[in-house]
Amino acid sequence: MNINKNYQNIAESYLFSTIAKKVNEFAQNNTDKKIIRLGIGDVTLPLCKTVVEAIKAAADEMGIKETFRGYGPEQGYDFLKTKIQQYYLSHNVVLDLDEIFISDGAKSDLGNILDLFDFDNTVLVPDPVYPVYVDTNTMAGRKIIYANANADNNFLPLPDTTIKADIIYLCSPNNPTGAVYNKDQLKAWIDYANNNNAIILFDSAYECFITDETLPRSIFEIDGAKTCAIEFCSLSKTAGFTGTRCGYTVVPKDLEFENVNINKMWLRRQTTKFNGVPYIIQRGAEAVFTKEGQKEIQENLNYYKENAKIISDVLKKHNIWHIGGKQSPYIWLKCPNNMTSWEFFDYLLENVQIVGTPGSGFGKNGEGYFRLTSFGSRENTQEAAERLDKLLN
Amino acid sequence: MNINKNYQNIAESYLFSTIAKKVNEFAQNNTDKKIIRLGIGDVTLPLCKTVVEAIKAAADEMGIKETFRGYGPEQGYDFLKTKIQQYYLSHNVVLDLDEIFISDGAKSDLGNILDLFDFDNTVLVPDPVYPVYVDTNTMAGRKIIYANANADNNFLPLPDTTIKADIIYLCSPNNPTGAVYNKDQLKAWIDYANNNNAIILFDSAYECFITDETLPRSIFEIDGAKTCAIEFCSLSKTAGFTGTRCGYTVVPKDLEFENVNINKMWLRRQTTKFNGVPYIIQRGAEAVFTKEGQKEIQENLNYYKENAKIISDVLKKHNIWHIGGKQSPYIWLKCPNNMTSWEFFDYLLENVQIVGTPGSGFGKNGEGYFRLTSFGSRENTQEAAERLDKLLN
Repeated sequence: MNINKNYQNIAESYLFSTIAKKVNEFAQNNTDKKIIRLGIGDVTLPLCKTVVEAIKAAADEMGIKETFRGYGPEQGYDFLKTKIQQYYLSHNVVLDLDEIFISDGAKSDLGNILDLFDFDNTVLVPDPVYPVYVDTNTMAGRKIIYANANADNNFLPLPDTTIKADIIYLCSPNNPTGAVYNKDQLKAWIDYANNNNAIILFDSAYECFITDETLPRSIFEIDGAKTCAIEFCSLSKTAGFTGTRCGYTVVPKDLEFENVNINKMWLRRQTTKFNGVPYIIQRGAEAVFTKEGQKEIQENLNYYKENAKIISDVLKKHNIWHIGGKQSPYIWLKCPNNMTSWEFFDYLLENVQIVGTPGSGFGKNGEGYFRLTSFGSRENTQEAAERLDKLLN
Repeated sequence: MNINKNYQNIAESYLFSTIAKKVNEFAQNNTDKKIIRLGIGDVTLPLCKTVVEAIKAAADEMGIKETFRGYGPEQGYDFLKTKIQQYYLSHNVVLDLDEIFISDGAKSDLGNILDLFDFDNTVLVPDPVYPVYVDTNTMAGRKIIYANANADNNFLPLPDTTIKADIIYLCSPNNPTGAVYNKDQLKAWIDYANNNNAIILFDSAYECFITDETLPRSIFEIDGAKTCAIEFCSLSKTAGFTGTRCGYTVVPKDLEFENVNINKMWLRRQTTKFNGVPYIIQRGAEAVFTKEGQKEIQENLNYYKENAKIISDVLKKHNIWHIGGKQSPYIWLKCPNNMTSWEFFDYLLENVQIVGTPGSGFGKNGEGYFRLTSFGSRENTQEAAERLDKLLN
């Protein structure tokens, strides 16, 4: 048996293990000091009440013969798809139910969608970026090229028409930078894709943080997207589902390449290699989209956004260049005094015991930058801001 | 963008859609007649009480800040892996915790594991068989050859040393035939695999139906398996999790090909393209392995096995050749009077309104055979047996 040798080309990521090692060492040598972690991209507020109640009610249903459910549709139950359809309609995107596929999260589908594409495609990935876009394509041996995101373009690269790319990743609001494409910018990417027979894989996992109504929450708000884009979204950040696992993927029925319908291909992939999201979890996800659920998750989102403002305000006060935080849970800052990302990491850890994420861990253009997140508790975020204020004085 | 053209080679399966069409037509024309469905491979008894309570308790935990859980380990929580480790130990299989990977079901992992293997491998699939083994490899363009399962070998094909296969699928107890390999037979496959540098993908999704203690529930009960096999199991049939989605995959640390460790490759695949099974569901799965949980699921398994006996008894009475049913929820019978599978399907539907599954839908060697399942209610199963008894007189 021959193995898939492309796995040997995946770069080992030492980012989070190195962070853990440094933090552990520091903690052992400084047992009297309180460390504040603003590095992790995971939520901390609990599932909202409406969701918990829906999950428990569904569990009860599963325990009774008359209401028990066995295999569900691989692409998800209509009760949840209908809610997502209405959610899209609320920002003026019209979708058919069979364009919506319920998933166990954006990460799974972002990896699995690649099953549909040939290996000889060229993949365009922004740098810096969420590492799995690169790793999943490296596993398949595809050629990867990069779109440079940097301060010159506000970390929002636009298409270069002299470059031929087949599969394009966009993530907006971006992880790690928090930058958000406006409609004109997304339109430029859509035009590029339609003109170059390319497909856009649009990661909208952070769309719920957008409050500026002029900014698109879905790529399908823009004309032309349905012939070139797939959108991946998740309830992980929207409703604290990082450990509860539910998301959705939108594959338009108009999406065709080489006269083959991509929506039908994805349905075939999912019915063959997936058995759907647990019924109980889908009922929890449905509750997110109720009036009460929306109110409760909005309170949580506001809490995180207020945290982001607290961090942003102290950076502003000290004239530290940063983006994100407003329409995103992430703040992306330029390390002061031309420190490298890891130098600034050590500087923060040693002086004020704040843990963040070195930007260089997300790609070469991340060098000299640093990511802080708003997912901590209010108390810790405030304390971190006070410590930063003193340090930067 | 070029698509994966192998998808165009996947055979469209009309098996279950044709069954549905025929049954609907009959029902419309015979509104006075009660149809009994013994065709579907889905459970009907509800989740057991202990599982429901565990799921509800976990949902409550997720609603409280202090006990909320975000991202979990992609490969599953230790609390569940420890229970599975103990379960294996109870049939004398010693596993390390990091050889156990929690999955959202055997179907997902059986498809996704193929990521690790090159495309130029030859795949050996028994015929008749669960169709996804063939479809998932067709999607990747691999060469597929078949091991004929038939009455001569009691539907348990053994290795042919003159044939070179790289990836071998075994399913025991088998779907659709219900046949179970004994230890000597599995040893023959293990020896073949170790001698030919082949890997065995062992689907043990129905292991819980084995009560004959001389028959192996896990391929790892047999010496030599840890250097050539991966085992896929599921709680779908064990504990009625078809709609609740939890399974596990065992990848031994001794499994190496081309000096590359397959356990590490799978860990890398899962951490890159998967985000784990919901915490709430893993707590439900944990409850399956408690003393109370085991007692409750055994009651359900006994119920299905009694159904199988009721069907088997009437077939025996009329001298209809069949296997399965004893260590499996499936009964695989030879259609009487040399009817084809579809002729017998029509004959049963029209005369006694029993719906089963034509064996030809599972492969060419299934022609002339028929699958009945024990997953119906006791009342329906008894009524079906009475109708069969009269029909076959």
